[in-house]
Amino acid sequence: MSAKVGVWIVGAKGGVATTAICGALAIRRGMVDAVGMVTESDACVGLGLPTLHDLAFGGHDIRESGLTEQAHELRRDASTLRYETIQELTEELDTISKSCRPGVLFESGQAIEALADGTERYRVARAREAVDRIAADIREFKSNHNLERVVLVNLASTEPQLETCPELDTAEGVMKLVESDDHGHLRASTLYAVAGAETDCSYLNFTPSPGALPAGIAALFEQRGLPFMGSDGKTGETLMKSVLATLFHQRRLRVLAWQGYNMLGDRDGQVLQNESNKAAKVESKDHLLQEHLGYPFQSHVAIDYVPSLNDWKTAWDFIHFEGFLGVKMSLQFTWQGCDSILAAPLVLDMVRFLAYAHSKGQSGPQHHLASFFKSPHGVDVHDFPRQFALLEEYIAAERAR
Amino acid sequence: MSAKVGVWIVGAKGGVATTAICGALAIRRGMVDAVGMVTESDACVGLGLPTLHDLAFGGHDIRESGLTEQAHELRRDASTLRYETIQELTEELDTISKSCRPGVLFESGQAIEALADGTERYRVARAREAVDRIAADIREFKSNHNLERVVLVNLASTEPQLETCPELDTAEGVMKLVESDDHGHLRASTLYAVAGAETDCSYLNFTPSPGALPAGIAALFEQRGLPFMGSDGKTGETLMKSVLATLFHQRRLRVLAWQGYNMLGDRDGQVLQNESNKAAKVESKDHLLQEHLGYPFQSHVAIDYVPSLNDWKTAWDFIHFEGFLGVKMSLQFTWQGCDSILAAPLVLDMVRFLAYAHSKGQSGPQHHLASFFKSPHGVDVHDFPRQFALLEEYIAAERAR
Amino acid sequence: MSAKVGVWIVGAKGGVATTAICGALAIRRGMVDAVGMVTESDACVGLGLPTLHDLAFGGHDIRESGLTEQAHELRRDASTLRYETIQELTEELDTISKSCRPGVLFESGQAIEALADGTERYRVARAREAVDRIAADIREFKSNHNLERVVLVNLASTEPQLETCPELDTAEGVMKLVESDDHGHLRASTLYAVAGAETDCSYLNFTPSPGALPAGIAALFEQRGLPFMGSDGKTGETLMKSVLATLFHQRRLRVLAWQGYNMLGDRDGQVLQNESNKAAKVESKDHLLQEHLGYPFQSHVAIDYVPSLNDWKTAWDFIHFEGFLGVKMSLQFTWQGCDSILAAPLVLDMVRFLAYAHSKGQSGPQHHLASFFKSPHGVDVHDFPRQFALLEEYIAAERAR
Amino acid sequence: MSAKVGVWIVGAKGGVATTAICGALAIRRGMVDAVGMVTESDACVGLGLPTLHDLAFGGHDIRESGLTEQAHELRRDASTLRYETIQELTEELDTISKSCRPGVLFESGQAIEALADGTERYRVARAREAVDRIAADIREFKSNHNLERVVLVNLASTEPQLETCPELDTAEGVMKLVESDDHGHLRASTLYAVAGAETDCSYLNFTPSPGALPAGIAALFEQRGLPFMGSDGKTGETLMKSVLATLFHQRRLRVLAWQGYNMLGDRDGQVLQNESNKAAKVESKDHLLQEHLGYPFQSHVAIDYVPSLNDWKTAWDFIHFEGFLGVKMSLQFTWQGCDSILAAPLVLDMVRFLAYAHSKGQSGPQHHLASFFKSPHGVDVHDFPRQFALLEEYIAAERAR
Repeated sequence: MSAKVGVWIVGAKGGVATTAICGALAIRRGMVDAVGMVTESDACVGLGLPTLHDLAFGGHDIRESGLTEQAHELRRDASTLRYETIQELTEELDTISKSCRPGVLFESGQAIEALADGTERYRVARAREAVDRIAADIREFKSNHNLERVVLVNLASTEPQLETCPELDTAEGVMKLVESDDHGHLRASTLYAVAGAETDCSYLNFTPSPGALPAGIAALFEQRGLPFMGSDGKTGETLMKSVLATLFHQRRLRVLAWQGYNMLGDRDGQVLQNESNKAAKVESKDHLLQEHLGYPFQSHVAIDYVPSLNDWKTAWDFIHFEGFLGVKMSLQFTWQGCDSILAAPLVLDMVRFLAYAHSKGQSGPQHHLASFFKSPHGVDVHDFPRQFALLEEYIAAERAR
Repeated sequence: MSAKVGVWIVGAKGGVATTAICGALAIRRGMVDAVGMVTESDACVGLGLPTLHDLAFGGHDIRESGLTEQAHELRRDASTLRYETIQELTEELDTISKSCRPGVLFESGQAIEALADGTERYRVARAREAVDRIAADIREFKSNHNLERVVLVNLASTEPQLETCPELDTAEGVMKLVESDDHGHLRASTLYAVAGAETDCSYLNFTPSPGALPAGIAALFEQRGLPFMGSDGKTGETLMKSVLATLFHQRRLRVLAWQGYNMLGDRDGQVLQNESNKAAKVESKDHLLQEHLGYPFQSHVAIDYVPSLNDWKTAWDFIHFEGFLGVKMSLQFTWQGCDSILAAPLVLDMVRFLAYAHSKGQSGPQHHLASFFKSPHGVDVHDFPRQFALLEEYIAAERAR
Repeated sequence: MSAKVGVWIVGAKGGVATTAICGALAIRRGMVDAVGMVTESDACVGLGLPTLHDLAFGGHDIRESGLTEQAHELRRDASTLRYETIQELTEELDTISKSCRPGVLFESGQAIEALADGTERYRVARAREAVDRIAADIREFKSNHNLERVVLVNLASTEPQLETCPELDTAEGVMKLVESDDHGHLRASTLYAVAGAETDCSYLNFTPSPGALPAGIAALFEQRGLPFMGSDGKTGETLMKSVLATLFHQRRLRVLAWQGYNMLGDRDGQVLQNESNKAAKVESKDHLLQEHLGYPFQSHVAIDYVPSLNDWKTAWDFIHFEGFLGVKMSLQFTWQGCDSILAAPLVLDMVRFLAYAHSKGQSGPQHHLASFFKSPHGVDVHDFPRQFALLEEYIAAERAR
Repeated sequence: MSAKVGVWIVGAKGGVATTAICGALAIRRGMVDAVGMVTESDACVGLGLPTLHDLAFGGHDIRESGLTEQAHELRRDASTLRYETIQELTEELDTISKSCRPGVLFESGQAIEALADGTERYRVARAREAVDRIAADIREFKSNHNLERVVLVNLASTEPQLETCPELDTAEGVMKLVESDDHGHLRASTLYAVAGAETDCSYLNFTPSPGALPAGIAALFEQRGLPFMGSDGKTGETLMKSVLATLFHQRRLRVLAWQGYNMLGDRDGQVLQNESNKAAKVESKDHLLQEHLGYPFQSHVAIDYVPSLNDWKTAWDFIHFEGFLGVKMSLQFTWQGCDSILAAPLVLDMVRFLAYAHSKGQSGPQHHLASFFKSPHGVDVHDFPRQFALLEEYIAAERAR
């Protein structure tokens, strides 16, 4: 029997977290199939990953309302969850809601603070105080649920750009920033990560927040023998890009222009309206193409806030390309996906892989998870088929032990 | 210095052939880059493939007009070739036109016969007579140009469905059909292929014509130690399908429906208006998806003749899929490509690979060319990234010798 | 205070009817705005149309389940109705369900019979018997609810093509077919219409069923001084066509090809899978364009059944057109609409206009309703702006009295 | 026989002008049909508009090369003109090129100056000097060609925003700005317009340049009894908007969001990359929707420079709308049009209407031309069908005289 694995989520009541939790509960009750979960493929059968039944959920949030309420909000706004499903899960969701603790506001920027149910309750004056509070919450969760290990998952809204500094590049530097309470080079996400390392969590950064996984944070986890991976889950338009760019490359069709127009209407979109929060996201989405193809061309990524879409991200990409004899042709695609529905299963997949790695004593960046990220930590490959091959190779190697 | 390689094309004055020839000439004069040619990638440098300079062109056609005239027609109808380009190539095109010989009409169906400049000149009464005539033309071409070897390339319009019979499954059976002049189980494309084998050509079937590459024809080439590959070049919508289906599979998003609507307006489209000619094409395009994904779902492939589009094939695909928690999402794409521009470089790529294999004594189906085909002969893999990996592995192995 | 108006619906438990009823109830309780109802525009204020509060609902259907159950099915399949909305309306819906009566199967074709909850209960052997049974149901409804007048609304699935015959052209002829029980030239829809005329209903044919409104049925209503209108509600792709064709006409851009690909997954779509049922629909959708533009061009209307879409009709239209100097350009649009949500308010709009006309003694075809139909009875204008102007002129004239 | 009408174009060698001139010449030689010209519809037959044969062309430009060279550039970049067509027109084009005169740079902004073949030749120090030089060129053209009247047409690239001031509101004010050489409140386009008024031209502003047609310029033409109209030709995406918004309005479907993403690659696009030049264009494209529909909603207009598209403007619009019961649906369209091909016939149409009005002594803003503009001068109607009705009413009234 597998040991219990804690999943402690920063942003535990957001769309992705609520969906991941509802989904995990519904799948383990047999109410729905595990569609969209890579770890439920035949390739993973018998590998020894923790099952969905092994997971216990909790986390921080800056909202007061419970998961049931959030689930009904998702249902009303985006029709992703069914009334009947939520009804059946209500008791369990309420129990998890009780495990959640107030999150921390620390240089999170105006856009994020505006989402909080009042700022007094969440703002913490000193970095060390924040880290200690977070760590205490994680320890309490671990002990209450009698957990072997915890995966800390960052699902909070994208934070503003962070000015780089040499301290962020080393574990020692990061700790110095914390102890000296350097508000200019720390974000809430950095403090969560530090607390995660201090409580021996493995770590998953599903966001593009610049403060969540700088080199110094990576070093911190590595020093303590903990596995981690990031950044920025690859769920929709960028996923398409990393697949199609490979096609253009392999067929040697020369991309002349790649324009990507993204519209989204959820909290994430609202936060991204703020130019400083948006910058991190656009960079994470855009750099991939030019690096992948290896030559310069016109490209543009727009992210617009369209509130009526709620969680239904709609993206239109126009790819202008040149073929034989210099003839110009085009491909356009419209992606209409629900962000939280696409992201949630990947979060569960990676939680399982991280807990597995942790249990096997594997530490450092989990490169085989590259295919799940827009900016995979320490991986140069942007070609999706190749990234996916890394995962297949890892699974084969683990089986071969 | 490489030996001269002949490229003998059935349908030598069609859109794909004219484009391939003009392109090869223009590239070797340095007028344009070799965009869209897989064999011009870094991976192939120094491999020893014949260069474009090594190729000599000729072929059969059922049209009287010359390549220059055809090139101007493409320019006027589809704007793919430039006036200036054709001007500069006119002399060379005229020379190649002179190498061309009248094609053969033999159970080619009404739609194809309607394209011929009169039928008397091309219709051949007996199968053996047709084979001999074709073989004589190829031998003359070989000797006139002092060629080491010839690649026979089938680029003719799609023929009507062919009733299967045991004879088509073996080399002996096919020869029996020829000698007994069995009009019911032979098509022009079968006779071209037989003549190709009898004159020791390697063979490329770029079309879905059912008579072009049945098991018996494959056996015929194999018996004589000749390399060959087919069928049906994968240039546009199906290429997209074989790339995107892999994505859905790897991310375990369940396809609910895949509707593909194709419109085209060239001769190929005109011929495909005829239901019996269309059947072969639709089957070649449709079977891939279900086989690739391994579960049943709603799918449909429409091919409509829209004359105003000329060679600009426009396809709209709608993919309805289910993700986590059973939520339905969708992807749609519009592909606007010029068929001959997409196909021509692949023809040149495969001519080079076939001539290379022939020179190395490699015979039989060239499985490493699977990524170029909708229905790769003898290959079950429909996943484009995996098909492409076959090519990369072949190249690596050849280099390693 | 207005008199009570009965709305007797053939297909009372189908998607459009259920949506229209739920919508009318929800609007009159102030739960939602009357979005999508033309009669709620400022132009109609004070005109004296019956209000939504004046309407009483009932009808025939070949399904046993009640409206509440149907509403929950729509919610689960298409997310159009909210759980909370249905909850609040349940009592009222149950009352209306009790007013519904078993429908009639009479030469309705296999596809429709397959939808019935058993055929014995609904099949009627003789035409006259069916008419009498329907008429009795309508009279009972009228008397139970103490109604001044009733609008008979045909919302049943599209019936198979009907062989024309001279009898269908006159009122007398139609009655002769009924009395002689001519199964070859009658459909259930014809019998409903006859019963409607015999009970002095006004009549709305929202379907393309060929038997619903032939000239003889129109004459029957006209003879009895009753207003009526049809056929085939214009809700989505065809609506777009009738708007955009006007643009191309006015700007003198020459349409070269107009390809319309429709996918739908509801009962209507299921019935239209049947080629004979589909024929009527395609004709209704296709003829408009050529007539509108007045010159021949390539056009095609495909309707494919894609079950996973349920009620969400998705259509892609590709319009290839020629501009100045013969240059070809294109427009493509993707329409993603929910058929019942688009149709329902138009049904309520026309019920109000028909009841109004009836109360004013206006009889015969209501040409000012042309903009609501794909094939407006007796109207040659296919230009949407002009059709809409007919409505505006009618309203102005009524006000001026 | 009609009198000769001069067409004096500012930006005479740009894409629109070159296309309009080539088209007019080709149509009058019978080489092509007059597709896309509204004035060639049956409605205008016998109305007495000047014919294409009556037109003489000339104008200003800041480029040295001739029209033939420009035409070949259009052919090579955008495939809009055919080689054969240009060949046949070369002599005539060369003659017109000789009638052209160097344009004027005056506070035209960096983006436009960058297009000039050197700035010394074109920059004029004082406003009055520029006006006089332009006026002299127009007078010379008029006398050389023995013209009865001249239509001045502004087709130059969009200028930067202009700070408003009271002087721009009156004819006297504008003249004061000219005489006092107020560089801060004048643009080249203002000076061209002043010169046009001083030489008794009628005036067409096809651009959104803010300086081209302020109230004071309008007053100037009005004072002198001259007809004029502007601003900003409605050719593509905005045309679609003004047609579709009417549909949403008439069917009372509530627009929730209208996102318009435009990509273009011609000189116009290059100039619009400059934020200050872009502002005028975006405002002209965006204000229409909200005014048309009369309620607030999310809307956005993006214009991105994608050089590889050249003159092929590609726009994707996403319209999110709400229907009955608050259900959200969507429409998306992709417009792929060639800007100059769409604009050129409208320029010729309006030249004919302006010359006609001038000859009839009709002065002031020509409101019946509203349907041709994004921001029709003095017209509040943004509903395309209604705008077009204004034209039909004008034609009917003129016929009735």
